[in-house]
Amino acid sequence: MAQKPSTPKGTRDFSPVEMSRRNYIFDTIREVFRLFGFRQIETPAMENLSTLMGKYGEEGDKLLFKILNSGDYLKGVDRQLIDDNDTVRLAARLCDRGLRYDLTVPFARFVVQHRDELQLPFKRFQIQPVWRADRPQKGRYREFYQCDADVVGSNSLLNEIELLQMEDLVFSRLGIRVAIKLNNRKILAGIAELIGEPDKLIDITVAIDKIDKIGLDKVNEELAARGLSPEAIAALRPILEIDGTGAERLDKLATLLAPSEVGTKGVEELRTVVDGTLALGLNAELDIDVSLARGLNYYTGTIIEVKALDAEIGSISGGGRYDNLTGVFGLDGISGVGISFGADRIYDVLLALNLFPDETAHATRVLFANFGTAEAAESLKLVKTLREAGISAEVYPDAAKMKKQIGYANAMGVPFFAIIGESELADGTVTVKNMADGSQQTIPAADLAAVLA
Amino acid sequence: MAQKPSTPKGTRDFSPVEMSRRNYIFDTIREVFRLFGFRQIETPAMENLSTLMGKYGEEGDKLLFKILNSGDYLKGVDRQLIDDNDTVRLAARLCDRGLRYDLTVPFARFVVQHRDELQLPFKRFQIQPVWRADRPQKGRYREFYQCDADVVGSNSLLNEIELLQMEDLVFSRLGIRVAIKLNNRKILAGIAELIGEPDKLIDITVAIDKIDKIGLDKVNEELAARGLSPEAIAALRPILEIDGTGAERLDKLATLLAPSEVGTKGVEELRTVVDGTLALGLNAELDIDVSLARGLNYYTGTIIEVKALDAEIGSISGGGRYDNLTGVFGLDGISGVGISFGADRIYDVLLALNLFPDETAHATRVLFANFGTAEAAESLKLVKTLREAGISAEVYPDAAKMKKQIGYANAMGVPFFAIIGESELADGTVTVKNMADGSQQTIPAADLAAVLA
Repeated sequence: MAQKPSTPKGTRDFSPVEMSRRNYIFDTIREVFRLFGFRQIETPAMENLSTLMGKYGEEGDKLLFKILNSGDYLKGVDRQLIDDNDTVRLAARLCDRGLRYDLTVPFARFVVQHRDELQLPFKRFQIQPVWRADRPQKGRYREFYQCDADVVGSNSLLNEIELLQMEDLVFSRLGIRVAIKLNNRKILAGIAELIGEPDKLIDITVAIDKIDKIGLDKVNEELAARGLSPEAIAALRPILEIDGTGAERLDKLATLLAPSEVGTKGVEELRTVVDGTLALGLNAELDIDVSLARGLNYYTGTIIEVKALDAEIGSISGGGRYDNLTGVFGLDGISGVGISFGADRIYDVLLALNLFPDETAHATRVLFANFGTAEAAESLKLVKTLREAGISAEVYPDAAKMKKQIGYANAMGVPFFAIIGESELADGTVTVKNMADGSQQTIPAADLAAVLA
Repeated sequence: MAQKPSTPKGTRDFSPVEMSRRNYIFDTIREVFRLFGFRQIETPAMENLSTLMGKYGEEGDKLLFKILNSGDYLKGVDRQLIDDNDTVRLAARLCDRGLRYDLTVPFARFVVQHRDELQLPFKRFQIQPVWRADRPQKGRYREFYQCDADVVGSNSLLNEIELLQMEDLVFSRLGIRVAIKLNNRKILAGIAELIGEPDKLIDITVAIDKIDKIGLDKVNEELAARGLSPEAIAALRPILEIDGTGAERLDKLATLLAPSEVGTKGVEELRTVVDGTLALGLNAELDIDVSLARGLNYYTGTIIEVKALDAEIGSISGGGRYDNLTGVFGLDGISGVGISFGADRIYDVLLALNLFPDETAHATRVLFANFGTAEAAESLKLVKTLREAGISAEVYPDAAKMKKQIGYANAMGVPFFAIIGESELADGTVTVKNMADGSQQTIPAADLAAVLA
């Protein structure tokens, strides 16, 4: 026999059981997005490479999946590129399109392309796969789904408060206890200003972002290695050591950052978001964390990160505000704020904590045995009335041995197995077996829907 | 300003309104698939090219989107291929993967790869996009969704009866009046045998498949051009002219095809399927059409095609039985039968016949005006209770001019606009405006959910 075919490295098939679990996550997120007035869009899997290139850094450009042009794709290609083995520039000649790398850049392209049709503020959500030519490893795939919700065209911090409620509601509904960490890019800028190193904003944030993992001493070593003066490192210490309740932290930050205008603005924004969120009540822990950075170059205001409290895993959601989403496509002045849910990590958390709903909820409700032509025909009629009542039902297609049919019912996780044999056919009855406890009863066929409901 | 970015040729963005219409179609199909016990799977967008190549004919191979290998993709590539401009063979060296072209080949690959985990019969459905590098034209896209349901591992004609009920239920629920056309590949083989041209089966079916479009005379001309003898063409005539009710057609076919064993078998199969389906009742017209072929090389038994009665468009669904789905991957003896729904054509039919549900059904139920910080905070609290009651609700994020906020509510198709201004804030009331008739009332805030429900 031929070698078994397989999926490409880093990609996955999803079985029916996996799909029902994944749909549980997507449906929960989608329902929350809709409750909050976000509207779904979809963009094509492939974008023009001119849309994608240069948006994710040099490393990102390499991780884009590029699609070979159709037809005579060598036409007009400079052979020197081939002789020089200049694979980067050659790829740009061989390929005009690539697979989307995230949902943010296609969304920015969408906003610019359709700006005349869009009513601002535009609250969109998008749940689609993205592709990255990363080296596959545990929990990292070359095809994975992102679930993004963003508001563009509104500077109001009310949007942040809404997004935090969405985080809270999604994880409450999924049953995952989480901590939501908050920061503000302006606070980070204020800190850099305060300690006299405004030009080292990125060095500082990259280093202090690791404080949870490596501790303060190692962070200070790294800051020194990145050229921060001992005075600056000493000045940073009291900020990193801020503790207490949220209100206490905000007060201490306000005092410490009082000399910095941008820092003070950041504390005010953070206070508005925290107070507004707490006033509405939430299940999640809400933590102010001045070391939180998350791709600092991208965010310009609020920064959000969500971690599961009962599972050792990285962040399972996150987001923030960015002031110039569409500038790269020539449309300035459009501010946005958004969050993204990582479906694969959420899946792993739900599985580890045994939080997925009972799988029989997704299975067909009742499987009818097949005893032959006349019995099957009668079963099909009954099954039709069940389906009209919204009950999923099926008839085993072949008149196979009963052991095989019951084995199939078991394997499918069907909660009820129904039998119309010779005597039931004569009586207008049906025998229904509860697969969970093995009990069975023979009832009038017309009563079946009520028993299964 | 930079040139507006755009989607690649033949691909589309879907706006919120388009998405709600598309979801209406997908949700309807998915719900029917589930009622009938079909279970969802997903496969990756990209497959190894070895899985895809050679499965769709030479033309199909050219229409596959191929993904340029990452890294040093020129390594080991024979430069002679480049010098010869042998783009076909060179592509096979530059690319190991391609985008899926349909859902059938990936499904066959799935069955073979996971055969040890699968319980047969396996009833799967799959709703995912596919990609083809076709020349784009009206109604033909390079990215489009397929919605497939198949049963593999069962030869029973009960599966056909179930699939026809699914066709009927999907289109009944969508409100589209349809005719379901039925044929059987064995009848076509019987016809070829009967008229003494068994080797010209494909020529005959390709020609007679066009009878609806070009008429019998032109079909006969084409048959002559394809080398059929005048005697054979004359013998074919009474078969093509069979008319009457389904039962009459079946009887006439049985008589005419009596000399052919395979033809007789085909008529028996068709009769079982038709009788079984009619016994259960259906809304659709059920037509026996011996000229129906639909990619004959693929199907081996029942052939199904569905056409909308009230719209001039090609088939909107179709399918059939194929006896060796997985043989190409080295696993023989697995028979399958399936149907596929064309979401884009169904979309066009629903739009043309004005059959989409009212769009306000998909909009946020209520938008709250924003009069400033205190009013917005109170609105957010009320909105939270509405969402807990399952009512989608949002607050306009900025305290903009009222005209702008109402304009937004109008543009979004929101059925209710709610106002908590100074006096409502003092009273604990809310003013709610019905956007359809312009009426408004001021009510206790606690009564709002009941008004909106």
